[in-house]
Amino acid sequence: MSKKFINDPELIVEEMIAGYVHAYQDRLTNLEGSHVILRKNQKKTGKVSVIIGNGSGHEPACIGFVGYNMLDANAYGGMFAAPSPDTLYDAIESSDQGAGICVLISNHAGDVINSKMAMDMAEDDDLVCKSVILYDDIASAPKDQPEERRGTAGTLFNYKITGSFAEEGHDLEAVCKMAEKVRDNTRTLTVATLPGTSPITGIPMFEIADDEVEIGMGVHGEAAAHNMKMDSSKVIAKVMAEKLLEDRPFVAGEKVAILVNGCGQTTQMEMLIFYNDVREILEAAGIEVIKPAIGNFITTQEMGGIALAFCAMDDEMQKQWEKPTNAPGFAW
Amino acid sequence: MSKKFINDPELIVEEMIAGYVHAYQDRLTNLEGSHVILRKNQKKTGKVSVIIGNGSGHEPACIGFVGYNMLDANAYGGMFAAPSPDTLYDAIESSDQGAGICVLISNHAGDVINSKMAMDMAEDDDLVCKSVILYDDIASAPKDQPEERRGTAGTLFNYKITGSFAEEGHDLEAVCKMAEKVRDNTRTLTVATLPGTSPITGIPMFEIADDEVEIGMGVHGEAAAHNMKMDSSKVIAKVMAEKLLEDRPFVAGEKVAILVNGCGQTTQMEMLIFYNDVREILEAAGIEVIKPAIGNFITTQEMGGIALAFCAMDDEMQKQWEKPTNAPGFAW
Repeated sequence: MSKKFINDPELIVEEMIAGYVHAYQDRLTNLEGSHVILRKNQKKTGKVSVIIGNGSGHEPACIGFVGYNMLDANAYGGMFAAPSPDTLYDAIESSDQGAGICVLISNHAGDVINSKMAMDMAEDDDLVCKSVILYDDIASAPKDQPEERRGTAGTLFNYKITGSFAEEGHDLEAVCKMAEKVRDNTRTLTVATLPGTSPITGIPMFEIADDEVEIGMGVHGEAAAHNMKMDSSKVIAKVMAEKLLEDRPFVAGEKVAILVNGCGQTTQMEMLIFYNDVREILEAAGIEVIKPAIGNFITTQEMGGIALAFCAMDDEMQKQWEKPTNAPGFAW
Repeated sequence: MSKKFINDPELIVEEMIAGYVHAYQDRLTNLEGSHVILRKNQKKTGKVSVIIGNGSGHEPACIGFVGYNMLDANAYGGMFAAPSPDTLYDAIESSDQGAGICVLISNHAGDVINSKMAMDMAEDDDLVCKSVILYDDIASAPKDQPEERRGTAGTLFNYKITGSFAEEGHDLEAVCKMAEKVRDNTRTLTVATLPGTSPITGIPMFEIADDEVEIGMGVHGEAAAHNMKMDSSKVIAKVMAEKLLEDRPFVAGEKVAILVNGCGQTTQMEMLIFYNDVREILEAAGIEVIKPAIGNFITTQEMGGIALAFCAMDDEMQKQWEKPTNAPGFAW
């Protein structure tokens, strides 16, 4: 049986949000009558708003990334389901600060369709929106078809950098340009060791052999590019890092931030060992390794595995990346 | 087979620390030639140092709690093993800022013995140390024998509050008094759903029936007080909260912070639902629920379960609790 701390499976999202909003009531709120996490008392006249929608079940993503120097709002959907156009509209409308809304969209069919519908509705109401579709998962399409690639853990770089950049008061076009630059400089690959369990059905979300790992798994257990035998951290790090380095490519002399994102039940101990193996590979390639992010940011329940992402940064991006935030997914 | 991202089991701690120190090189360092995480460039003349030692394998505890407004140093041991007296001595000696060292000790036999030996060595070298033994786990001994109780997740309150308090420049006696007050106001109880796996042996650390949970489990899988059938978050929250409320007791009119500590593979989603259930019970009891901590702070590999802790706070404690920190276990 599934041993999850839940009550009614139908009420998972509602009860989770009630807990979340209570815990972070000093800085966040839920928009009355909707499914939108908003910053509290942090609106600034003339600031571009940066928002995203996503399905629940990947916590802290993305409710955890609303805060100063990150997102202005997050429209959350049901378990593993994109938020509705109405919910996304609410996020656009409620976060508006008079300078337009940058709608980040993680590339999954439901998210893209619903976000576009919400933007049409918002434009009918004279709200100025511009979207940037985020794709980073190199396993999901060849590199000459980047728009076919899924949005996955590397989108975190965008929430932080574009969010911090918007905080400085740049206009909508500049904010969206930054989002595109971060996306174009980011690549992600995920290795799965164990499935997570759907809290609705209590059933594991995919199967995986006892001695194998899947390279290229999507955040909902989407088909992996290939499997290999479980091996040491160093061997897996090498397989993954080489694919990522080659894809963009990332080259000597660049500054790169590493994201080691735990998928759910992979421990901090393992993430740190894996990080150490990856940064050695990058350093050996002549890359300057800057401040990383290591932890459970975008999870799939208690799935075992790591999403590894690289983001090449210029000085401006690095400055925004390193700024502090009070978003609960990044700060207590 | 165990599917952990490790290399040589003998090198787990060394490689993890190498990754950790690289990742947080802006604020932390490892004492050359020893096993001590130290703040970098944050020594203050005349500040009491607050330190603790602990076994590895519980990350982010306690390497993650070294930082401004938290600990000055952490002496780490091998996997699930207390650090040696020499290592603890190194933590005392290297963190000294001329105003004495408050040695927090989480109540486990090895930690107590080795810390006392280290303090004897330090006193021989004219370092002024005072220890406070932390015990909070109500399942491990009756309430009239608090000194027999184990130190567990509730010790987190002490790292934060005593650490922040020391930052203000209070003397050693005052800092230790604060640590005692936080300890006496804290109670913890843990529910386990699934075992974690030893990264050394690849074997689960305990057994638990498919439809049962263990109430009162220690952080190394120490015998639980009793088991019950797996039930809803609300039912488990009620069983646990009532035991905690009664033990101290926590009463109407008090201000209490809740810690919902994930043991490893329990999701943020579940922790938030569970938090919501617990805070409703406390509010119904007339208790004022203040800023909580919800996340994976003190883990036991990928163990499933939650450690629930309450800490009753006066205004001074609350002020210290809520201050920001740059310790990586609390801040990105």
